[in-house]
Amino acid sequence: SRTFKLAVLPGDGIGPEVMAEAIHVLDTLSAKADFKFEYNRQLVGGAAIDAVGKALPAETVAACEASDAILFGSVGGPKWEKLPPNEQPERGALLPLRKHFGLFANLRPGICYPALTASSPIRPDLVEGGFDVLCVRELTGGLYFGQPKSRTELADGDIEVIDTMVYKKSEIERIAHVAFKAAQLRRKQVVSVDKANVLTNSVLWRETMVEIAKQYPDVTLSHLYVDNAAMQLIKAPRSFDVMVTENLFGDILSDEMAMICGSLGMLASASLGKPKGDGLYFGLFEPSGGTAPDIAGQGIANPIAQILSAALLLRFSLGMEKEAVAIENAVRKVIEDGLRTGDIYTGVEGTRKVGTREIGAAIAAAL
Amino acid sequence: SRTFKLAVLPGDGIGPEVMAEAIHVLDTLSAKADFKFEYNRQLVGGAAIDAVGKALPAETVAACEASDAILFGSVGGPKWEKLPPNEQPERGALLPLRKHFGLFANLRPGICYPALTASSPIRPDLVEGGFDVLCVRELTGGLYFGQPKSRTELADGDIEVIDTMVYKKSEIERIAHVAFKAAQLRRKQVVSVDKANVLTNSVLWRETMVEIAKQYPDVTLSHLYVDNAAMQLIKAPRSFDVMVTENLFGDILSDEMAMICGSLGMLASASLGKPKGDGLYFGLFEPSGGTAPDIAGQGIANPIAQILSAALLLRFSLGMEKEAVAIENAVRKVIEDGLRTGDIYTGVEGTRKVGTREIGAAIAAAL
Ligand SMILES: CC(C)[C@H](C(=O)O)[C@@H](O)C(=O)O
Ligand SMILES: CC(C)[C@H](C(=O)O)[C@@H](O)C(=O)O
Repeated sequence: SRTFKLAVLPGDGIGPEVMAEAIHVLDTLSAKADFKFEYNRQLVGGAAIDAVGKALPAETVAACEASDAILFGSVGGPKWEKLPPNEQPERGALLPLRKHFGLFANLRPGICYPALTASSPIRPDLVEGGFDVLCVRELTGGLYFGQPKSRTELADGDIEVIDTMVYKKSEIERIAHVAFKAAQLRRKQVVSVDKANVLTNSVLWRETMVEIAKQYPDVTLSHLYVDNAAMQLIKAPRSFDVMVTENLFGDILSDEMAMICGSLGMLASASLGKPKGDGLYFGLFEPSGGTAPDIAGQGIANPIAQILSAALLLRFSLGMEKEAVAIENAVRKVIEDGLRTGDIYTGVEGTRKVGTREIGAAIAAAL
Repeated sequence: SRTFKLAVLPGDGIGPEVMAEAIHVLDTLSAKADFKFEYNRQLVGGAAIDAVGKALPAETVAACEASDAILFGSVGGPKWEKLPPNEQPERGALLPLRKHFGLFANLRPGICYPALTASSPIRPDLVEGGFDVLCVRELTGGLYFGQPKSRTELADGDIEVIDTMVYKKSEIERIAHVAFKAAQLRRKQVVSVDKANVLTNSVLWRETMVEIAKQYPDVTLSHLYVDNAAMQLIKAPRSFDVMVTENLFGDILSDEMAMICGSLGMLASASLGKPKGDGLYFGLFEPSGGTAPDIAGQGIANPIAQILSAALLLRFSLGMEKEAVAIENAVRKVIEDGLRTGDIYTGVEGTRKVGTREIGAAIAAAL
């Protein structure tokens, strides 16, 4: 029997309570099989600031290094909003983790289940039947980490600030491969998003996408300018299969897509490092939504994003595709059976409002 | 009787036919009053490339310099898409015009008329009653013009590309004043959009907004991160009054907002330079939508965005507030009377599908 080591970082707000349900699902899986999970629970975010004075303690990083993957909850909240940006839970924990582990590929499946289209803010005729977009965001390049970043007082008393958007071709190539490989397992269409009519970065981005596409003749590549992509996502979410883009565009468009899906509480994400050779990736897996401080501790948060993040962990870091699919099917079944947490409850006949633990237990039971 | 000189740049696609209606409306106004418009019609965009080999001929720039304002149609189309980015109609004409005339303030009113909410791709309950957002985009700073922009072959054969996001505090101050002044004439709420949790640019942007807000105690200032703004626009478009943001974020969010309004063919924009002292601005006024090559020349395009752009020209460059409002009211009346071009026709009872000239004539008649 194999043992997998998972670093578990619940974080703040609803993090701990949704994490409990993900662990429950993982334990239910392993109880029926010949593998075990060993959880190394660590502080992160505001919880870590309160306990030891910083958002990402060295001990937490060390625990992640010693693990097969990181299951992350969410971090942040009003309590820590007055701290300098660098020390805040989100920036102080997430950005260093991404950089330290070279997590360059952020996959965010944007799934609107057919049974949940009424929760989408988009007009019913545009989302009928649901949709399934995969957003592939480059996560360690561009304006996030590019140097120089500076603030200078000028001779005339004015102030000048600089951030630098920088990409290497090799960085664009590796994220292109992630997108095309993902598309091969889906509907075989990649839309690459850039601003090639203005940015030198985007000209290389587009060239490189076209070049790498040649290695995937079964996949169709098309291009959208980022401003147009922001429009098309709203008007025609069903027309997208895989969308690939650079760091900051991905930050904006993946959140836009998440909103279009109708419930942030349903959306998982994977942040992956270099492939390890065996087809597996070290990765960090987290819900797309936030800490929802307004409902934290009440037992009403939707744990599905956290549970689906655990499924992505099984798929990408442990190579357990069958088990990942089992979790995804269990979630789908529970939704079809009519169970809804408050965020996705619209009062439709045949549905019932339940709490975090009840829906978590139902998903575990459906495995 | 005063004569105003207008540079008229119809451009490509539907540009010439919608421009004709805007001119018809301006002529109808002046026929009843003691002012005249003198139109200096010039080549721009693909039309200029075809005629004289470049998207922005020197003669066109000279004509603009000799005018009180620029009424711009739209440029671009499949015919010129294979040209190098710098020479294409949009980038080759618009960016140099903005830079040359220092058009730093881009105002895009995002209006969803109560009678047209069915054209919005957003769920009816979220847009009921319509909405009216003003997007104020900084137009000459940030990643668009920041230096260095470079492409370098590295020693190891890799390629590195750089774009630079740069703002001066003075540039942020002047766009802040535009936003706060606009808010004072509206619902007195400014939302400033930035990415202050990641960008040095945004930290200064936010500080400066907070500082300038003190000079407008009657206006409420709040802040959104750009990823969150992309979500809130969809979920709660009615909650926005004035949104102010930097160049690239404004490019993305103003197009997203335009899509949410339901018809690009209805949305005007103003790009303004430094105030001239008399409260007026030199400016370029253009529809938010594109050249719509698929319907060009058929007489079915919606001329309202062009007509409302002419209204903005009267307001900001000529100080003719009364006449601007008259045009805006005429448009509203024609919409309420049920006239619709194809892009906004949904078959609702009491509405009738008409062509470009008929709706243009109806607006002129309603003045
Ligand atoms: C918290 C912030 C730094 C982060 C980002 O911008 O990447 C977040 O918005 C995200 O998308 O994970
Ligand atoms: C054509 C392009 C350079 C331009 C921009 O990015 O500003 C356009 O998208 C716009 O919004 O006016």
